[in-house]
Amino acid sequence: MPKAKPQSKPGARGAAPPLFDPAFRARLCDLLAWRRDVRRFRSDPLPEADFEALLDLACLAPSVGHSQPWRFVRVDDPTRRAAVIADFERCNAEALADYDGPRRRLYAGLKLSGLQEAPLHLAVFADETTASGAGLGRRTMPETLRYSAVLAVHTLWLAARARGLGLGWVSILDPEEIAACLEVPAGWRFIAYLCLGYPVEEHVDPELERHGWQGRDAACRRVLQR
Amino acid sequence: MPKAKPQSKPGARGAAPPLFDPAFRARLCDLLAWRRDVRRFRSDPLPEADFEALLDLACLAPSVGHSQPWRFVRVDDPTRRAAVIADFERCNAEALADYDGPRRRLYAGLKLSGLQEAPLHLAVFADETTASGAGLGRRTMPETLRYSAVLAVHTLWLAARARGLGLGWVSILDPEEIAACLEVPAGWRFIAYLCLGYPVEEHVDPELERHGWQGRDAACRRVLQR
Repeated sequence: MPKAKPQSKPGARGAAPPLFDPAFRARLCDLLAWRRDVRRFRSDPLPEADFEALLDLACLAPSVGHSQPWRFVRVDDPTRRAAVIADFERCNAEALADYDGPRRRLYAGLKLSGLQEAPLHLAVFADETTASGAGLGRRTMPETLRYSAVLAVHTLWLAARARGLGLGWVSILDPEEIAACLEVPAGWRFIAYLCLGYPVEEHVDPELERHGWQGRDAACRRVLQR
Repeated sequence: MPKAKPQSKPGARGAAPPLFDPAFRARLCDLLAWRRDVRRFRSDPLPEADFEALLDLACLAPSVGHSQPWRFVRVDDPTRRAAVIADFERCNAEALADYDGPRRRLYAGLKLSGLQEAPLHLAVFADETTASGAGLGRRTMPETLRYSAVLAVHTLWLAARARGLGLGWVSILDPEEIAACLEVPAGWRFIAYLCLGYPVEEHVDPELERHGWQGRDAACRRVLQR
């Protein structure tokens, strides 16, 4: 039976490796199935302690050469938030204009971000100038540095969901505009803009599936044998 | 107290959303802390049922526009495996030649892949030609398609660790060579080469930290306020 406490303090050396039982695996399966990209948020803030805990966990993400290149930018300033929202609206209008007919009507009806409602805005960058990792593992695949920041986003996402918090990843943005608006150091590559907060509703099926945009694609589950 | 069964069958519509309790969150914290990039594998194969379950879970990963662009290639053919290993050895020798002095000696002593021992080799690609998702969310950030495949890798990684299985991500490879060697369809972008199997040993600290290559970097935990 699972104990109420972790078998080890995460990060403590010399602790016994944990054994994960079928009950935990079943719950992990639930977590993955019910994760969701959230666009409908309640306005009440998430507790600061939860936010700090999420960042601690995100930093446990894998990274190429242990380079830990993810960088977090919390956006609270109303003027900057308004600029991000304006950039989203412009990019989203341009995206809409690319569609025709029924697709266009469908796209226009989708809610694609919770930027207006989400109590917490968090931008994630990859520091492409970091000396950490000393280049290990990314000589032939420099993109793995950016992939490492993506792994931190996913870690944060799952940890948030386990606390009943929703996360929405907004990519309908101009990366250069966002980097300029947030005045980040040179060499930081924009990876993701995240909305965080308590979700209004919970679903096991993705928003885009439920609203008829895109169903499950069998191609992704096939395995090529070589 | 956590139940032995999931509260819902993952993917079943109409099921009640799961509530994740503190015991689960503590175990999830253990999972993230003890994940590891594994390079030392036992030779015994992983059960086929486990492999299938891992693929099912990986397909629950988030993806831009619900595009589900990850594609899996299982590499069993000894000739192809030998070609991948030869490519790794060539790329690794070139990487070693870039370092000098103590860094070079340290690099030479690191074990950076379990390609020889791992019972299962799995290459992951992103299908950049997929029609799924109809381009939603990637007009200004086309790289999010590749990021989606990275999210599937991470999902598979965590699910593997929860079953006591280790995963090692090998990036010291020439992406073009690997795509050619595995004869994948045109338009598939190489994302990751994964080794899977039971780990010989378990650690809470990353290999590269334990062997003095790179410690924890405080820069990744700081939050810029904007």
